[in-house]
Amino acid sequence: MSAALKAKDQLIRAVECDQIGRILEAQTLYQDGIALLMSFVETEPDETKRKAFLLRIKEYIDRADAIKARVNGKLMLGEVVDHVSIEENDTGFDYDQIFGKYMDDKTVEILLEEPYLTQNYQYQNLVRFLELAITNCKNLKYFRLITKEHTDPKNPDQQKTNLGQIRADLERRDIVVSVKYEDTLHDRRIYLSNGYIIKIGRGLHFYKAANPMYSIGLVNYRYRKCLQTDVDIWRNNRTAS
Amino acid sequence: MSAALKAKDQLIRAVECDQIGRILEAQTLYQDGIALLMSFVETEPDETKRKAFLLRIKEYIDRADAIKARVNGKLMLGEVVDHVSIEENDTGFDYDQIFGKYMDDKTVEILLEEPYLTQNYQYQNLVRFLELAITNCKNLKYFRLITKEHTDPKNPDQQKTNLGQIRADLERRDIVVSVKYEDTLHDRRIYLSNGYIIKIGRGLHFYKAANPMYSIGLVNYRYRKCLQTDVDIWRNNRTAS
Repeated sequence: MSAALKAKDQLIRAVECDQIGRILEAQTLYQDGIALLMSFVETEPDETKRKAFLLRIKEYIDRADAIKARVNGKLMLGEVVDHVSIEENDTGFDYDQIFGKYMDDKTVEILLEEPYLTQNYQYQNLVRFLELAITNCKNLKYFRLITKEHTDPKNPDQQKTNLGQIRADLERRDIVVSVKYEDTLHDRRIYLSNGYIIKIGRGLHFYKAANPMYSIGLVNYRYRKCLQTDVDIWRNNRTAS
Repeated sequence: MSAALKAKDQLIRAVECDQIGRILEAQTLYQDGIALLMSFVETEPDETKRKAFLLRIKEYIDRADAIKARVNGKLMLGEVVDHVSIEENDTGFDYDQIFGKYMDDKTVEILLEEPYLTQNYQYQNLVRFLELAITNCKNLKYFRLITKEHTDPKNPDQQKTNLGQIRADLERRDIVVSVKYEDTLHDRRIYLSNGYIIKIGRGLHFYKAANPMYSIGLVNYRYRKCLQTDVDIWRNNRTAS
């Protein structure tokens, strides 16, 4: 497919996603489509054609801006519907028990902001989270992960390889995945497109290591000791917008 | 505690366990108590005292034989109550889904015959099994594991260390653990004291490795691909005996 055709295809899909409420995916498609179109326009020698393209691009940028405003609205916190305080060394908490009930058939898009994905146990936590998402959100179509870029000096490709494995696996399940790197990211947040936003102080990583390794809690995290952290579940007021 | 007192204590507990139906634990206590008493008697210089001891030991041996007969009766298969055929590459099976419903409040003792416990994933499977047992069998008091002894040339203490960790962890939860090594063991069997016996051709190890490592199914084994194996669930006819 030529760059122009690919851009066109992405922008058509962006409009479709927007219309059916998959606004995170629409946002990604608009951004990618516009970037592709821009690079294509720059190589267009015909001045008239280029101006026409730029006009078209301007329209798409306006739409992308509108989408961005909608996404930001969705990500705004509304009212707190639940709060859980996890104390140091508490047990009895796994993702399902804490927020599984908010993940449902109406969740078609998920945004996870999780700054730290560099250690094996952190990738495992991500997979654990996604397994719950796949189990509970039968109509999940899009997953966006925002994390800090990490280059392990001993294995520089490690993060990209691991996240690439996860992405490929989800895409085999017809879930579009977008990974974005943001070096200034600090806060942890899980946005569900059904309107719930889960904020955990420590993000997904609030478990202590199994100690000793082979003990109850190695697999079933309801038996794992936790680090102190607070969980707030918010519901966005603009869910219907 | 002197050897004699310890032996006495074990034999008293053996009788107590026998009376309340914890016959696997009673069997272990009888065997250990008798062995301890025997070693003690051998060092007794007084001929008359020794003969009196030996008479007492004879009584305990008779009781231990009676217990052994009862245990063997419990382990005899009765009728098949369920059968599951797992095909190569099937997904959708975890321990809970296959046999969790047979593990209940009435299960106070479990015997697991699992010949192969040498690799990390095999110890993980054992912990996974025990987490289910602890979750479902609220009154579990005794766990006997029979496996093949394995000496890793690079790390000769590995098996003992790992099983020791698991044992200590269960004992902190007031579950007595007995590990026996049998080099000729082949068949896999899970005996529950509520009368159910679970036979899985491959024992606990019927899962393929996660491939790639970070993919759905890494943690939640309902998404893991399986190896071909058959599961038969039996109910012992002498449950009430």
